[in-house]
Amino acid sequence: MRDVQIHASAIVETDRIGPRTRVWAFAHVLAGAVIGTDCNIGSHTFVESGAIIGNGVTIKNNNSIWSGITIDDGAFIGPAVVFTNDRHPRSRGLPEAAQRYERDDWLLPTRVGRGSTVGAGAIVLPGRTIGPYATVAAGAVVTRDVPAYTLVAGQPARPRGWMCCCGLPLRSAADDAVCRGCGLAYTRGGDGIRRLDTRGAAG
Amino acid sequence: MRDVQIHASAIVETDRIGPRTRVWAFAHVLAGAVIGTDCNIGSHTFVESGAIIGNGVTIKNNNSIWSGITIDDGAFIGPAVVFTNDRHPRSRGLPEAAQRYERDDWLLPTRVGRGSTVGAGAIVLPGRTIGPYATVAAGAVVTRDVPAYTLVAGQPARPRGWMCCCGLPLRSAADDAVCRGCGLAYTRGGDGIRRLDTRGAAG
Amino acid sequence: MRDVQIHASAIVETDRIGPRTRVWAFAHVLAGAVIGTDCNIGSHTFVESGAIIGNGVTIKNNNSIWSGITIDDGAFIGPAVVFTNDRHPRSRGLPEAAQRYERDDWLLPTRVGRGSTVGAGAIVLPGRTIGPYATVAAGAVVTRDVPAYTLVAGQPARPRGWMCCCGLPLRSAADDAVCRGCGLAYTRGGDGIRRLDTRGAAG
Repeated sequence: MRDVQIHASAIVETDRIGPRTRVWAFAHVLAGAVIGTDCNIGSHTFVESGAIIGNGVTIKNNNSIWSGITIDDGAFIGPAVVFTNDRHPRSRGLPEAAQRYERDDWLLPTRVGRGSTVGAGAIVLPGRTIGPYATVAAGAVVTRDVPAYTLVAGQPARPRGWMCCCGLPLRSAADDAVCRGCGLAYTRGGDGIRRLDTRGAAG
Repeated sequence: MRDVQIHASAIVETDRIGPRTRVWAFAHVLAGAVIGTDCNIGSHTFVESGAIIGNGVTIKNNNSIWSGITIDDGAFIGPAVVFTNDRHPRSRGLPEAAQRYERDDWLLPTRVGRGSTVGAGAIVLPGRTIGPYATVAAGAVVTRDVPAYTLVAGQPARPRGWMCCCGLPLRSAADDAVCRGCGLAYTRGGDGIRRLDTRGAAG
Repeated sequence: MRDVQIHASAIVETDRIGPRTRVWAFAHVLAGAVIGTDCNIGSHTFVESGAIIGNGVTIKNNNSIWSGITIDDGAFIGPAVVFTNDRHPRSRGLPEAAQRYERDDWLLPTRVGRGSTVGAGAIVLPGRTIGPYATVAAGAVVTRDVPAYTLVAGQPARPRGWMCCCGLPLRSAADDAVCRGCGLAYTRGGDGIRRLDTRGAAG
């Protein structure tokens, strides 16, 4: 764990954590978790065995990244996001439910795509995929998959617009859009939008 | 506190905690709290004096179980659930509000019934009762009592269906229903449903 | 830091914290944060450099008070409130977004007014002002400024009524209202209501 900055009060039990990653106070990372390079793991955050976090990921405070959650490179997880991995949870200490937990099929995985944003206090139901560069607004409750570049908001979360890779909203309602911030260009394609490369070809 | 598994970083100040209960990292349980046997107290969770937690209860991460909260046997409290015990909170440090806190009647109790589920990130307003085997969906805001076996969802939370003791939804719209998972049978009764015992009599 | 009660497990790195303030377990207050007198900083709460907290403020558990957040005297921040300071967050580790964080203009400040209440689990979007003695209901998502004495609720939060300084709702629909709890009197004025002083003059 060379070049990993771990606050003196944090507990990091995995050895699969990349260089230049920073772990803040009172965080707890279990053995069996995987964390890439150049990440930020906020204070009071818990990362369970079986969670997989890519490179350049920012996870703010008060998060629990459960087994079954995979977060791709460059994603942003806001403060107090709530992930889940069990669609019909009961206590394992409840006799009527115990048999459901003798099998492994209660766990539903979640995938958070490259460069996406999960806003502050959002809730992500189990088994969902958040596409690359998508944005989940603060407080949204994600009950369906979120397509790439899509902004979703509300409870339950519904599409509200398109977001650029850089994080700014795309304001054009026409078939093509250019980001007012970074100048990246997009065109309609498939069920959503696609990024145009710098030569104007869809990529 | 024999047979209690307390993480080295957790602080447990009560001696009323039952065998086989496990307390995770950075949890804080105050003196005067009561916790039964075979419970799971998640990381970064706070249990206040006056909170009462039964046997076989699962409490996931980032919860605060305040004075006035009673959680019955076998209940499941998801991650980052938000309980409350004051309907009209102000800071005690605010001169205009200080007199309201000189009396004890600001505290409204909450009861979470046997075998019930409070989903991830749900918010429970003070003075409410969640019935046995009820399920509060992730992100719901509970402003009214929740009857037994009832699924509630949304902000504010409203009834959406019935749940079996084992945690699976009951799919029948007719007067009788049988759980596709565990085979328990139910019939309409009173304002809701009742479980039939294995001989077919309502119990 | 005389007369400051800091739990043995808490980490307080600022020296700008007033007498009689209490800091609970596993809280982390960074150098550069400012906290007044007679405050309560709940367990598992994080206060960042640049946050400014007045006197007599109550902050319950599991909060993150970021740089750019100013909380005025006597305010109440419920458990697990979610503040934000970036309207379009992406990870700084994402190449497409990195240039937006080379400038400082991504940070939008939030002001929480004197004597106000931010209810349990509420989410406050960046750049908003919550007026004096306003109340944000539990679970509300604040997307607009909240006027003084106003109750807002829902996702997104919308006005639902008026609140007295003491925290109780004002029940009159007429031009004038008197609090049934503390007897303070109000009258319509401007876009909202104003408190009458004890001699009946608007103040």
